[in-house]
Amino acid sequence: MANQSINPNLRAKRKAHPRKAEDYVAGIVQGNRVVLSKAITLVESTLPKHQALAQDIIEQCLPYAGKARRIGITGSPGVGKSTFIEALGQQLTSLGQQIAILAIDPSSQVSKGSILGDKTRMIELAANERAFVRPSPAGTTLGGVARKTRETIILCEAAGFDTIIIETVGVGQSEIAVHSMVDCFLLLLLPGAGDELQGIKRGIVEMADILCINKADGNRVALAKRARQEYRNALHLFPPKTSGWTPKVLSCSALEKQGIDDLWETVVAYFEQTTTSAYLAQKRAEQSKFWLQETIDAALRDWFMQQPQVAAQLADIEQAVLARKISSFKGADLLLQLALEPK
Amino acid sequence: MANQSINPNLRAKRKAHPRKAEDYVAGIVQGNRVVLSKAITLVESTLPKHQALAQDIIEQCLPYAGKARRIGITGSPGVGKSTFIEALGQQLTSLGQQIAILAIDPSSQVSKGSILGDKTRMIELAANERAFVRPSPAGTTLGGVARKTRETIILCEAAGFDTIIIETVGVGQSEIAVHSMVDCFLLLLLPGAGDELQGIKRGIVEMADILCINKADGNRVALAKRARQEYRNALHLFPPKTSGWTPKVLSCSALEKQGIDDLWETVVAYFEQTTTSAYLAQKRAEQSKFWLQETIDAALRDWFMQQPQVAAQLADIEQAVLARKISSFKGADLLLQLALEPK
Repeated sequence: MANQSINPNLRAKRKAHPRKAEDYVAGIVQGNRVVLSKAITLVESTLPKHQALAQDIIEQCLPYAGKARRIGITGSPGVGKSTFIEALGQQLTSLGQQIAILAIDPSSQVSKGSILGDKTRMIELAANERAFVRPSPAGTTLGGVARKTRETIILCEAAGFDTIIIETVGVGQSEIAVHSMVDCFLLLLLPGAGDELQGIKRGIVEMADILCINKADGNRVALAKRARQEYRNALHLFPPKTSGWTPKVLSCSALEKQGIDDLWETVVAYFEQTTTSAYLAQKRAEQSKFWLQETIDAALRDWFMQQPQVAAQLADIEQAVLARKISSFKGADLLLQLALEPK
Repeated sequence: MANQSINPNLRAKRKAHPRKAEDYVAGIVQGNRVVLSKAITLVESTLPKHQALAQDIIEQCLPYAGKARRIGITGSPGVGKSTFIEALGQQLTSLGQQIAILAIDPSSQVSKGSILGDKTRMIELAANERAFVRPSPAGTTLGGVARKTRETIILCEAAGFDTIIIETVGVGQSEIAVHSMVDCFLLLLLPGAGDELQGIKRGIVEMADILCINKADGNRVALAKRARQEYRNALHLFPPKTSGWTPKVLSCSALEKQGIDDLWETVVAYFEQTTTSAYLAQKRAEQSKFWLQETIDAALRDWFMQQPQVAAQLADIEQAVLARKISSFKGADLLLQLALEPK
């Protein structure tokens, strides 16, 4: 789908400042980046008025969503994620794709969007009209940030992007959130063997569909080759994923733009296999159910903890459990009796 | 602590049929196996009267609990778990230990306790007066079965067992439940490389503190040796666990009772290291908090789903989400509005 925002005729037909959900949706579906950006700002807003409008826009965009490839990318700081995403983004836009790059960074509550926040990190992509770069939303909880990102995916898909890349750092919970909203999960690694995963949590390796050793350039080529073989051997020992897909290990140099085409072909092969096997459709259905349940659970927990009697007793009961004066189950029962009607 | 249940003097002092929680607790603390068994039956009962009594007993046993080593054991069917536990049990009782063997098997709802249910699988241990073997409790949910097992651990610890072994099958969720209630998690593997983990879920390998290749006997000795080296190489590539403990890979023949002593020394080394580093105390505190939160979450979810308006609408809203007529978040909000007071 061509980027309609640069079509002056279309631009003239639309209102400069959309007010109603329908106006936003019309602009988004036509690929207007300015309207899309404004809608995302509403999604990120904490004002109830903005939130109500954002929810309307999202619901109306849903029928147009779901067609993009959703790709999660993670890796330790220093692995070269920005350079890699620049190289991948150039590769995809040169193939005629429209791409959106989002981020989840729970630390952005403090730094106001540290990942991608500094757009100068991706100079070429920022200037590429086929690419749309958006920093991580700020938020008080990872759950909140993740929800906003997932809603932003819906808007970007309605805007016709072919590929949506969601970046995160390899430090734990945020990977699990990203994993639950993407189709394909990519882990970037450094050349050298054994200790380069120090910053990556166990389990993140397990989630990856594709591992890619970056910085395979200069005097690191041999090192990268060896690391690639060692990871292949290691992964071979682990059981197959429920996708039926065997995780692939590749190497590339984002700096020299080497190996990016091979990587993309592997991503395409992943989508072909999982689409044919219907695994992808099943995965997305499970993700939807996951977010339905997750949102309910989080809201129930918030509601429960905010009940005045629970809030007043929680710390004492937790202490009693930790001091083994009462069991965890007894502690839970005591708190539950405070908030829920007696059985 | 000696097994008091075989002391006729003590037996004569106690009532044959304890009625009050205090009677049960006195019997349990003195190591009376008959009283312990009856108390566990109360824990497993669904009758409210029995449950109330069971909770009283558990709370009164808490001050005596917490001193045992809690060890989880898993592995695919066919890996020889029963033979292994027999061999380990004999090793430990020959060292003068009192051991309890429990099981978590969510499929036991159907089979009424398939793991350990057939006590003839462990003929020697069943006849060993230093060993206490109890099948998996039946239950309608894994959460329910897990709670009963965790409560049973408290009773067994109060009864003075030195080591508590919790067995499960390598098929998924039950491992996570076991992992959240043991100090040390042991994964049994078959000799041969690569594909022997087929039945084990990814992630279970990650949870293991010790991997042990069983059936390293006869013409499988060389195969086991190679598998051991390959797993060591593979694990080396993965990041260290938060315990600071590097997972060890051993081999043994439970049938020929070879390598069991080495295995136990490794378990002891694990406990020494994690006790010294205070990781074990921290892990147990986190497990207590986990069960407190988990019990609250499960109860809130049950309560929510049982609200008549939610129950009436749930299927329709879930369908609308899966058909992408509404987003997961909108679906959750609609359901939440039905049960919770308006904000």
